[in-house]
Amino acid sequence: MCSQSSNLEALFKPKNIAIIGASADVKKIGGRPIDYLKKYGYTGTIYPINPGRDEIQGVKAYHTVSEVPEPIDLAILAIPASVVLETIEQCAENGVKSAIIFSAGFAETGHEGVEAQQKIEEIASTKGIRLLGPNCLGYANVKEAAMGTFSLMFQKGLPTFSNIGFVSQSGALGAYIFSRGREIGMGFSYWISTGNEVDVQVADVISFLADEENTGVIAVHAEGIKDGVKMQAALQKARDNKKPVVMLKTGRSAVGAKAAASHTASLVGSDAVCDAMLKQYGVYRVNTLRELVDIPYTLSQVKIPKGNRVCAFTNSGGVGIMLADDLSEMGMQLPPLSEDTQKRLLELIPYAGVVNPIDVTATVGTQPNLLKEYLEITCEEGLYDQLIIFLGYSGLQKDIISMRLELLNPVKEKYSHIPMLWANLFTNETRLLFAEKSMPVFEDPLEAAKAAYALSYFANVLNSDAVTPSTIPQPVL
Amino acid sequence: MCSQSSNLEALFKPKNIAIIGASADVKKIGGRPIDYLKKYGYTGTIYPINPGRDEIQGVKAYHTVSEVPEPIDLAILAIPASVVLETIEQCAENGVKSAIIFSAGFAETGHEGVEAQQKIEEIASTKGIRLLGPNCLGYANVKEAAMGTFSLMFQKGLPTFSNIGFVSQSGALGAYIFSRGREIGMGFSYWISTGNEVDVQVADVISFLADEENTGVIAVHAEGIKDGVKMQAALQKARDNKKPVVMLKTGRSAVGAKAAASHTASLVGSDAVCDAMLKQYGVYRVNTLRELVDIPYTLSQVKIPKGNRVCAFTNSGGVGIMLADDLSEMGMQLPPLSEDTQKRLLELIPYAGVVNPIDVTATVGTQPNLLKEYLEITCEEGLYDQLIIFLGYSGLQKDIISMRLELLNPVKEKYSHIPMLWANLFTNETRLLFAEKSMPVFEDPLEAAKAAYALSYFANVLNSDAVTPSTIPQPVL
Repeated sequence: MCSQSSNLEALFKPKNIAIIGASADVKKIGGRPIDYLKKYGYTGTIYPINPGRDEIQGVKAYHTVSEVPEPIDLAILAIPASVVLETIEQCAENGVKSAIIFSAGFAETGHEGVEAQQKIEEIASTKGIRLLGPNCLGYANVKEAAMGTFSLMFQKGLPTFSNIGFVSQSGALGAYIFSRGREIGMGFSYWISTGNEVDVQVADVISFLADEENTGVIAVHAEGIKDGVKMQAALQKARDNKKPVVMLKTGRSAVGAKAAASHTASLVGSDAVCDAMLKQYGVYRVNTLRELVDIPYTLSQVKIPKGNRVCAFTNSGGVGIMLADDLSEMGMQLPPLSEDTQKRLLELIPYAGVVNPIDVTATVGTQPNLLKEYLEITCEEGLYDQLIIFLGYSGLQKDIISMRLELLNPVKEKYSHIPMLWANLFTNETRLLFAEKSMPVFEDPLEAAKAAYALSYFANVLNSDAVTPSTIPQPVL
Repeated sequence: MCSQSSNLEALFKPKNIAIIGASADVKKIGGRPIDYLKKYGYTGTIYPINPGRDEIQGVKAYHTVSEVPEPIDLAILAIPASVVLETIEQCAENGVKSAIIFSAGFAETGHEGVEAQQKIEEIASTKGIRLLGPNCLGYANVKEAAMGTFSLMFQKGLPTFSNIGFVSQSGALGAYIFSRGREIGMGFSYWISTGNEVDVQVADVISFLADEENTGVIAVHAEGIKDGVKMQAALQKARDNKKPVVMLKTGRSAVGAKAAASHTASLVGSDAVCDAMLKQYGVYRVNTLRELVDIPYTLSQVKIPKGNRVCAFTNSGGVGIMLADDLSEMGMQLPPLSEDTQKRLLELIPYAGVVNPIDVTATVGTQPNLLKEYLEITCEEGLYDQLIIFLGYSGLQKDIISMRLELLNPVKEKYSHIPMLWANLFTNETRLLFAEKSMPVFEDPLEAAKAAYALSYFANVLNSDAVTPSTIPQPVL
C-alpha cells in the first residue's frame, strides 16, 4: 500500500472538482452538486464530465476525465453502482487524486456487493486514489463551499461557518445533525459522511480534522471502528492539538451490532473495549443525537473552563434542587457562596435562596437588573468555573429575552473564562438570539448540566498530560 | 382533626370563588384572578372582597366575607403575608370551605415563618377549612375555567383541555411544565401547585385526581413526601382506577435535600426507600422536566399497548442501530419480521433493511406511499405492540409533513391498539400538526424509545394484580 495521506487534502480541500455523470438538470444527482458549487461560491474549477455534452449549467463540459487539461483533485461519481468499478479504474489511470462514490448496493447488501466493493478497495490501495464511500452522502467544506454531495438538505442553504468539524458514518444520521444544527444556529467547518468506508475511514477524517486549521472541535458518529491503531493515532493527534473529540459510537447491543452489519457493513467489536479506548484518549462519548449536537455546539460557543465547580441560578427552587441532584450525581461540585456574599445577595432580594443553588425568585422577571447584579457578584467571588441559569418559560417572549441578553452580555464578556449555560424554553426564533450572543441554551436543565459536565471533562482531559499510547492495550475492534 | 376530604371538591371544583383583596387593576395580584375567571368563562359566582369598593371589574363587590349571601366554596387570598393569619381565621369562622394562600415568607424563610405557618396549620386542622399553599401559584381547573391563580403564564390563554392532571410542589417548575405543554399542544384537566403544603399535600391532590372524572393521567412533581401512608393510599387509588402516575421526585442528593428545605420547607427522606415505594405502587419515575411532559403527553395521546415488542422504522440505518441499542438496554424486545413479510417488503424497496430495525431508506422521501405500505404490512403481521418511526429532518417542512400525516392517519386509526411514536426534527408549527393527529413526536430517537418503555411499563403495571399495601414495608419519609 502506498502512502496516500497527502491526497486527503485533494479530497477535502480540492482545487478543482470533476462531476462524472454531470447533468443540466439541477434536480438530478449529476446536476445538483454543480448547482451547489456555483450557488455557494466554490472558487476552484468545476469540470462537468458527460460524453454527450460540451456545456452544462453554463460551465464548459468534457467528454471524459482524460480530456481535462490539468490533474483532477476530486471526482464526484454521479453514476449507477454498475459502472462505478470501471469509472474508478479510469480515474485512477488518469491521475485523479480522490473520488466520492455515493451509490448504495455494495457490501451492505450481501455477497455480490461485497465482491464489487473488494475490487474497488484494491484499486484504491494499489493506485493511491483516495475514495470516500460508497453508500455515503459525500461532504461539504463550508468555508470554501467545496460541495461533494447531492444531498437535498443543502438546498435550504449552507450552514454558518464555525469551528465544528463533523464526520458521520451514516449519511441520514449526519443529515439529521446537520439540519438540527442549522435550525439552532450551529455552524460547521466540515460535514463529512463516510458510508461503507472502502478507503477513507472515520479515523482518517478525525486525523485530517485534527490538523485542519479551521476546525477546533471534532464531532463524530461511528458504527464500527475498522482499524483500531489508526483510530488511536488520530485521537492522539486531536488531543495533542487540544481539539476536543465528541463521539456517538453505536452498535453497543447485539441487535444493534447485527443492524450495523446490514447498514454500512460494519463489524462492531466489544463495546467495553471500545469504550475503554475512547476514555483513554479523552474522547467524550455521547449516546444521543441531541448530545451529539449540544456538546460540540457548547464547545464551539464558550471557552473550556478551569474545572468542575458550578453555581446554579434558577427562578424555581424546585429546578435548583433538580440541578443540585443531577450535578452532584455527575461528580460536579457546588460549593456554597461565602457568608458575606450571601448577605449582599439577600439585601438585593430578601426571599432569595443564596447558598447554591441560588433561587433568584420571580423578582428578576420584573427587575432583570437584579439578575445581572447576582451574576456579577457571583463571578467576582471567584469560586466557580461555570454557571447554569434556569429561567423557566421566559425565553418564549422575544422582546423580554432580547432585552435580557443585551443586559447580561457585558457580564458574559467580562468573565469569558466562566461559561454561562442557559436552560429555558425557547421558540425557533428566540433560540437564535442566544446563538447570536454565543450563549449555549438548553430546553431542559439536565441537558445544561450534561453540557457543564462535558466542559469539565475536557477541562480535565485537555489540561492533563497526554496518554502514552504504548501503555494502552491494543483493542480488538 | 375533623374529616376534611369533601372540602377538596369545594377547593378544586368551586361553585363560587371569593377574592379577598380584590382589585380593579387587572395587573395586580388581586385583580388578575377576577380577570382570568371572567375571560376564560368561569360559570360559578365571583365575589370580589374589598372593604372600600362596591363593584370591581364590573362585578358586585363585598366589604367582608361575612357579607357574602351564601356559603363560600373557595377564597383566594390576594393579601400580604402579614395579614394572612387573621384573614384565614375570619374565613374559617364564616364557614369558608377552602382557601388559597399565594404569599411566600413562611416556613421556607426560617424561624418566624415556621411559627406563622404552624398557626395556620392549627386553624386548618381544627376548623376544617382546606388550604392550598402558602408559597404556591394556586391552580387552574381547565374545563370549568376555575382559576385560583394570579400567575402571568395564564395571560397567553388557557391550555387545551385534556385528561392530564398535573400537580407540582414547586410553582415555577410547574409553570415551566404548563408553558412547555402549551407550546407543544398538550392540554391539562388540572394544573395545581401546592407550595409549602400547610394542609393540602401532593398526595391529597393525587387522591383527588384519581377520582376526578376528567382526569385519566396523573403527572406529579414532589420535593418531599410529608405523609408516606397518605401517599401510598393515593397511589393505590390511582392504580385501582387504572390511572397511570408519572412522578418527578427531586431532592435525591445531599445538596438537593438541603436546597429543598429552604425552598418549600420539605424534609426529604431516604431516596432509596422512596424509590422502592414508588415502584411498588406502579409509579413511573422520571428525572427530567422533558420526561415529565413527554411521558404524560404520550399517555394522553395513545392507548396503553399490550406489551414491550417494538418495531423500529427509520430512514437512517445509523439511527436504527441506535434505537436497537437503546431499546435492548431497556429490556424491550425487537423480534424480527417473518421471512415472508421480509420478502414482501424487499419487493417494495430493494435496498431496504427489513429485519427490525427496518431501514426504509431515502426512497420514502419521494414515495411516501411506500412508508404507508411498510407500516400496514408490519401492523398486519401482529408481532408488535408499538412502532417507532424516525424520519430525520423531514418534519421541518410543513407541506411534506402535513401530507404524510394525512396519508398515514388511516393506518394509525385502523391499528389504534399499536401506538406509533415519531422521532424527527420539527418546528414549533409542524409539531402542532402531529399534536392535532394525536401522534406523539420527539426530537430525539432516545426520547421516543423512553416513551415506548414507559408505555410498556404501564402495560405491565396496570394489567397486573394490584399490590396489597399490607405486604409493603412502610417507608420512613
